[in-house]
Amino acid sequence: MLPEHVTIVEVGPRDGLQNEPGVVPTAVKVAFIDRLSTTGLQVVEATSFVRPDRVPQLADAAEVLAGIGDHPGVRHPVLVPNEVGLDRALAAGVDEIAVFAAASEAFSEANLGTDIDGSLAMFAPVVRRATDAGLRVRGYVSTVLGCPFQGAVPHDDVRRVTTALFDLGVDEVSLGDTIGVGTPGAMQDLLAALLDDVVVDAIAVHCHDTYGQGLANTLAAFEAGVRIADTSAGGLGGCPFAPGATGNLATEDLVWALHGSGVSTGVDLDALVEISAWMAGVLGRPSPSRVVTALLATRNQPDR
Amino acid sequence: MLPEHVTIVEVGPRDGLQNEPGVVPTAVKVAFIDRLSTTGLQVVEATSFVRPDRVPQLADAAEVLAGIGDHPGVRHPVLVPNEVGLDRALAAGVDEIAVFAAASEAFSEANLGTDIDGSLAMFAPVVRRATDAGLRVRGYVSTVLGCPFQGAVPHDDVRRVTTALFDLGVDEVSLGDTIGVGTPGAMQDLLAALLDDVVVDAIAVHCHDTYGQGLANTLAAFEAGVRIADTSAGGLGGCPFAPGATGNLATEDLVWALHGSGVSTGVDLDALVEISAWMAGVLGRPSPSRVVTALLATRNQPDR
Repeated sequence: MLPEHVTIVEVGPRDGLQNEPGVVPTAVKVAFIDRLSTTGLQVVEATSFVRPDRVPQLADAAEVLAGIGDHPGVRHPVLVPNEVGLDRALAAGVDEIAVFAAASEAFSEANLGTDIDGSLAMFAPVVRRATDAGLRVRGYVSTVLGCPFQGAVPHDDVRRVTTALFDLGVDEVSLGDTIGVGTPGAMQDLLAALLDDVVVDAIAVHCHDTYGQGLANTLAAFEAGVRIADTSAGGLGGCPFAPGATGNLATEDLVWALHGSGVSTGVDLDALVEISAWMAGVLGRPSPSRVVTALLATRNQPDR
Repeated sequence: MLPEHVTIVEVGPRDGLQNEPGVVPTAVKVAFIDRLSTTGLQVVEATSFVRPDRVPQLADAAEVLAGIGDHPGVRHPVLVPNEVGLDRALAAGVDEIAVFAAASEAFSEANLGTDIDGSLAMFAPVVRRATDAGLRVRGYVSTVLGCPFQGAVPHDDVRRVTTALFDLGVDEVSLGDTIGVGTPGAMQDLLAALLDDVVVDAIAVHCHDTYGQGLANTLAAFEAGVRIADTSAGGLGGCPFAPGATGNLATEDLVWALHGSGVSTGVDLDALVEISAWMAGVLGRPSPSRVVTALLATRNQPDR
């Protein structure tokens, strides 16, 4: 049974653009975030304060935040890996941050340069200082349904990292199927193993569509009680572990499924499609979102 | 709750190739069907005995059937629109036919040149003669979740056509979301409206992926008791009503979801991916299947 309403966390400007091959101009990013923030989306992840030399796509984080307009009621979280990033984020006046851990030791070492315990130790002062400053804090846990390096990821490891993040004080944890290998059955098994120890209202899912499972996995999580999902407008973002393959689940594909199934999101689908069509033009390639592609194709037919 | 086992009806050689822009050589079609028939698939729809001038992609139906090898335990249904087509199919020695009706009056007129009652009158002698000849008969009902011409399609119209086909003597009815606009909620609403009047074991679903909903809709049907789904290897086939958009749900994307969720299909996924990679080369474009794309991309990485 699907819920009556779900909240979508739009991650296109951050997770999408971070994994696009080219660097998008700051003014385009600002326009993208501003436009997304008028579609009814309640959360638009804006950028990331990681090391600019590591992620040049998002090196202009402070400029982007300075540029976006005032959007009452819309949250704009930013990724923060450590206290240096937090200092930059606080200086930029953010309202919400996100820290990012992994459920896989191998992925943590590769992505963060430290094991899981080391990553939690790194996040502890970040989360404490952020909450002391009145910020909301999101925690990402990546590779919850599989890791590109170690393969299977035990449920116990996901639970350990998730509960540790809540113990540090994060408000919400987003469970990421980073390489998109999960299936609806695997998602429901994971949630069944987790939901004794965490409050389902504070759990989001973040399902990449690399294997075409993103929508089905997200809906499976909703059937299991989750009410928040991360998606990317137009399906922006590739998969760094399968070059050429798709990355994030497209916001439009999820919204189509939900609205058609009687679930409200508050999001204006037509407005989103317009934005994604514009961004596809900026990036010079068609949107991988099937809803965007289909709606643009039917609209362009001469006689129907 | 998903079932323990489902049956996949592979429609790539017919529904896939019929909607590809180019005409594939007969020898390639024969090799495609032969290879698919050794992957564990139990049903591989082979071709269609429609008017060759209407569907030039499948004008070589008799030659294809004459060319394919002996595959014990694998059924090879063919589409037959009328008695002329049935005569050709019987002469070719087929074991199963399929007739194709629509739930939408507008689509029936456009696709078959007659309204729904006219189509059923046309199919009646076809089904009778086929069953008299010992053939199994499948009935397609298209546009069950939406029509490119009339928009919404009432559940009552789907029920009327479906029960009429069973009354004519068909063994199985495949409910087609021809333009892929359906959603999991819409699929379950439709099935709830139908399953009082028909035996669920004789129902298949045929969900196009035009709006990225094919997998979710098929799984929603499985959750509602359906045990048979039509899919296309590699996601072959476009959507004639949204040029440039995706057509059939890819067999590989469904098999990935099912196997990962503990549902058996009897199908060898790796073998399917090999075949779809080969066919993508023949057609000169990448497979729209996300599983095929992702598996080929990870395989081609230098170091993992």
